[in-house]
Amino acid sequence: MSNHAEAPVGAFEPPYYVAVFTTVRTEDQDGYRETNARMEELVRAIPGYLGMDHAQTPGGLGITVGYFRDAEALAQWRSNAEHRAAQQRGRAEWYQSYTLHVAKVERSHGFVRA
Amino acid sequence: MSNHAEAPVGAFEPPYYVAVFTTVRTEDQDGYRETNARMEELVRAIPGYLGMDHAQTPGGLGITVGYFRDAEALAQWRSNAEHRAAQQRGRAEWYQSYTLHVAKVERSHGFVRA
Repeated sequence: MSNHAEAPVGAFEPPYYVAVFTTVRTEDQDGYRETNARMEELVRAIPGYLGMDHAQTPGGLGITVGYFRDAEALAQWRSNAEHRAAQQRGRAEWYQSYTLHVAKVERSHGFVRA
Repeated sequence: MSNHAEAPVGAFEPPYYVAVFTTVRTEDQDGYRETNARMEELVRAIPGYLGMDHAQTPGGLGITVGYFRDAEALAQWRSNAEHRAAQQRGRAEWYQSYTLHVAKVERSHGFVRA
C-alpha cells in the first residue's frame, strides 16, 4: 500500500465510515505484495471509496485505515469476490493475527500547518 | 507509543469507539517524546480506555488508533487539561498535518492463527 509521507488523508463531512484493519504477518509472504497491490486497485474502483492511510512498524504491526462514504460502499467492498478470496488466503498464509473494526465517523477534523 | 509486534489490539463487543489520529510531523520534535509518554500514561488512567495501536512509517505517516468503551470515556480524555495543552503544543511545534476521525464501531472481528 502507499505511504502518504506528504499528508494523511483529511477529514470528510460526517457521517462516513472507517475500516481499521490491524495485522501482524507471518514469515510466509509469498504472493502478498501482488495481492495487496491488486486489492488496492480494486478498492479504488468502489464508488464511495474515499481513501486509505497505511503505516507499518518494521517487523511488527501494520495498520490500514480505509475511508468510505457510506455503508453501501463498504458492503460492496466486503462482498467483492476477489477480495473474499484474498481474505481466505490471508488467513491461510499471510496473517499471524488481525483485527477489523468497522465504525461510523461521528466527528472529524484536520490540521495543516500554514 | 508502544509497538505491539506480538498482536494487534483485539475486537471488543460493539458498540465502542475508535479515535483514529493520523499525523505527519515537523523537523522540530523537541519535547515530543516526553509528552507522548506522558499522554500514554494519562490515557491509560481513563476509565473506559481499552487500548491503542500505533505504527509509524519511517520519516512519514504515523497512525495511532485509540479504543474506548463509550463516548463518555472519550469525552473525559478529550477534556483532560494536560492533553489539551499537549494538543496546542502539537499544533505549534510538532505536527505538519494531522487528521482525527472519531467513530462508533458497529462490527468487529479478530483472527489469531491457531
